[in-house]
Amino acid sequence: MRARITIMPKEGILDPQGVTVAKALAELGIKGIGEVRMGKFVELQLPKLTRKKAEAVTAAACDRLLANPNIEGYQFDIVEGD
Amino acid sequence: MRARITIMPKEGILDPQGVTVAKALAELGIKGIGEVRMGKFVELQLPKLTRKKAEAVTAAACDRLLANPNIEGYQFDIVEGD
Repeated sequence: MRARITIMPKEGILDPQGVTVAKALAELGIKGIGEVRMGKFVELQLPKLTRKKAEAVTAAACDRLLANPNIEGYQFDIVEGD
Repeated sequence: MRARITIMPKEGILDPQGVTVAKALAELGIKGIGEVRMGKFVELQLPKLTRKKAEAVTAAACDRLLANPNIEGYQFDIVEGD
């Protein structure tokens, strides 16, 4: 199994990196982009785990290390394969 | 429209952040995780664009700013809604 995790700033939390990227894109002349939000994408290899166990391990990794619960939310998919 | 962009280190490129996270997870006692790869997730709001134009703008944003073509690959989905 593999976990594909998306970690994003929560709604209402200022995302200064996203604001900076939006400005930079406008300065490059790339038009039509509104708000930009920047997050993290994490892929975990979970060999030899059942789907249920893979979900539990991924949630633990997010809750205990990867995401800051004060300002970030996460979601993940567990997919087959290495 | 919105673009949901995933930017990851290319295959074969060392991902020191991922190595560090894998070690930290093991030290926390979270078992069953093999390789960890860390990337970026970027969401662009693309109001008033057709799907075709949204795809072109998103590819330009990745090629000209968001992704480092030497070491990163990207993929994206264009989804309906704000």
